[in-house]
Amino acid sequence: MRQSQLFTKTIKELSQEEKSINAKLLIRGGFIDKLMAGVYSFLPLGFLVLKKIENIIREEMNKISGQEVLLPALHPKESWLKTNRWQEEEMLKLKNRAGKDYSLGWTHEEIITPLVKKFVKSYKDLPVCVYQIQDKFRDELRPKSGLLRVVEFFMKDLYSFHCDEKDLDKYYEQVKGAYFKIFKRCGLSKQTILTLASGGTFSKYSHEFQTITPFGEDIIYLCQKCKIAINKEIIVKENYRCPKCQSKKLETKKAIEVGNIFKLKDKFSRAFDFAFQDKDGKKKIVQMGCYGIGLGRLMAAIVEVWHDAKGIIWPREVAPFLIHLIQIENKPKIKKTAEKLYKDLQKAGIGVLYDERKDKSAGEKLVEADLIGIPFRVVVSEKTLARNSLEIKNRKQENIKLLKINNLRQFLKNVR
Amino acid sequence: MRQSQLFTKTIKELSQEEKSINAKLLIRGGFIDKLMAGVYSFLPLGFLVLKKIENIIREEMNKISGQEVLLPALHPKESWLKTNRWQEEEMLKLKNRAGKDYSLGWTHEEIITPLVKKFVKSYKDLPVCVYQIQDKFRDELRPKSGLLRVVEFFMKDLYSFHCDEKDLDKYYEQVKGAYFKIFKRCGLSKQTILTLASGGTFSKYSHEFQTITPFGEDIIYLCQKCKIAINKEIIVKENYRCPKCQSKKLETKKAIEVGNIFKLKDKFSRAFDFAFQDKDGKKKIVQMGCYGIGLGRLMAAIVEVWHDAKGIIWPREVAPFLIHLIQIENKPKIKKTAEKLYKDLQKAGIGVLYDERKDKSAGEKLVEADLIGIPFRVVVSEKTLARNSLEIKNRKQENIKLLKINNLRQFLKNVR
Repeated sequence: MRQSQLFTKTIKELSQEEKSINAKLLIRGGFIDKLMAGVYSFLPLGFLVLKKIENIIREEMNKISGQEVLLPALHPKESWLKTNRWQEEEMLKLKNRAGKDYSLGWTHEEIITPLVKKFVKSYKDLPVCVYQIQDKFRDELRPKSGLLRVVEFFMKDLYSFHCDEKDLDKYYEQVKGAYFKIFKRCGLSKQTILTLASGGTFSKYSHEFQTITPFGEDIIYLCQKCKIAINKEIIVKENYRCPKCQSKKLETKKAIEVGNIFKLKDKFSRAFDFAFQDKDGKKKIVQMGCYGIGLGRLMAAIVEVWHDAKGIIWPREVAPFLIHLIQIENKPKIKKTAEKLYKDLQKAGIGVLYDERKDKSAGEKLVEADLIGIPFRVVVSEKTLARNSLEIKNRKQENIKLLKINNLRQFLKNVR
Repeated sequence: MRQSQLFTKTIKELSQEEKSINAKLLIRGGFIDKLMAGVYSFLPLGFLVLKKIENIIREEMNKISGQEVLLPALHPKESWLKTNRWQEEEMLKLKNRAGKDYSLGWTHEEIITPLVKKFVKSYKDLPVCVYQIQDKFRDELRPKSGLLRVVEFFMKDLYSFHCDEKDLDKYYEQVKGAYFKIFKRCGLSKQTILTLASGGTFSKYSHEFQTITPFGEDIIYLCQKCKIAINKEIIVKENYRCPKCQSKKLETKKAIEVGNIFKLKDKFSRAFDFAFQDKDGKKKIVQMGCYGIGLGRLMAAIVEVWHDAKGIIWPREVAPFLIHLIQIENKPKIKKTAEKLYKDLQKAGIGVLYDERKDKSAGEKLVEADLIGIPFRVVVSEKTLARNSLEIKNRKQENIKLLKINNLRQFLKNVR
């Protein structure tokens, strides 16, 4: 994409209102815009990052037999009365002109359970694993920290349905594996820790995936040896030992919850009388699990982990583009070389943001490139052309390399 | 995809409640599910069709310089007060726990106008063309006709911002062209007619794209010679001549509105005081256009046009899969051949639904295939294997061809 075409611009200074790193950098870089407290728009660059994250999640969900659906945001009151959750105070509610009650979905157990029930009669129809990636809503009284605590959020939820607890347990471990892959692909493998959490009323434990950063809002207790943690809830209620090695040497860390997985067991299937005929001919209640990842929250966590004083440092797989091609000065020879590079890279299927703007100085362009945080910055200038080269800089590193123009494709092949 | 894995099943009989063809066939085929009046879930097959339509629209919007964003569904009251549209009775409204007023977006001029304004100062920053593909909401008192008149709907809206009316007019024609391409790719080129409509308060005319079908809810007056129509509103208010050839020979047709394009001019830019500095140094008000397509409605229109007594007949580009591969009987040789075909087709990047279910008869499988409506049905059975062949049937035609197995790839290359 040509940067002159991008309708957003970077912003030098923000009002003091935004305190979190993710909000500051994402707004300044032109990735998101705040409409009101807890409600954000995703602008073209932010939309691209969101789609990259979405596609990673979709690929990993499909690998574990997830079938994608799109469920309504508007829910009927009747469904939520069945599970006694209509009074949940974080649920936004509304009435239509005729007085009919709706709620806005913040989770979809009340929708997906009766829906899957329509199609499942026998053990032969199980397991079923269904997921959705879509907008959800929560009546958050104190939205804060940019995309971390919001009212409207883009979320993946997977729901699984099983014959028995054994099959649920097996799938639960598969989802764990898929989640680790997702967070790895998002550049958060080192920072993201499986964390034991309370299972609520229906199961002893659930698991959170917590990304350690100094600005996280959660506190976890980490066993450095086992790379596993327990959350505050568990510490208070039960013990302060590592669930694996039983060590009491736990480190207190701040973290952001980027995912959670729950064994719902029969909580919802019972409420909707969702039973099936098992091999032995007997009617049994379906066992369920649910597995969430907030996409905006994940984007925020990536920025909280991957930034420096100059701006964002996008991990490769979630970056809006791989290359930020910057043309310095507008002399014919420079323009011609840069244009050719732009077209060659596009043809090769490499995502490139091409800064061909005429009204910006070299200094301004480089400062903006650091803020936007695309993995590789490639500069074409009079100086580099004199040596038939271009400058290449990895956003993660300080040093700048001079590379022969003809070697760029080879270079990119190696770094991809 | 293996059909045994698909969690949905086709449905033989529906309650009498559903009257429209699109609802009947889409529900029976397992494409959608009705949660309540005017609110539907998209199930795996329907989700695939929706994504195909979405990608066609996205490609054509990108070709006319559209930049994609994702805007909030929750809107602040303040924005809608500025345009005096807070009282629109079709807008769903709600309050949060703290008493703050929100509305649910049914259109996004009130959001996109002040957003784009933040980044546009000069004529150099124009034009800007931004689009969104997302969930919208309307307080429809009498939802009906399946996906045609609903409360929650998935919609593409493009908004364009220009220096002057001339540039707006030029872009408006470009969008017209893009819309014709979209409807053509969706299999509706012959049936979809550009229709003159009232421009509301801000422009003399707008245009609708009306798909002619016997079950359409709109009435249009078509000049067969010019392939252009005028809508009822215009007939009543103005005249009954073809806007092109002035003929009075207009045919009355029932149709479904699948798209509409409007010149908003300065209606919204004025409300938000969205001005820019022009070449001559003067401050001028931005000129706007808006351009909508409802994706669910388009899917419904496709089904209303493309079906027969047996089921849906998906046009190629929007079909959930290109091939419905059906294995008849489960003998080792048949299974082996079908499995190999399935894998070969997948490797070649051809979308294939593979019916390898053991508990269904040949008859049941063929009836279901006709209902689901995938463009090519490929049958592998003992009979076909005896001739080292498979049966291939185009869903649009009655005749069945016998094709040597080795020729399938070549055949598909030709029909794609």
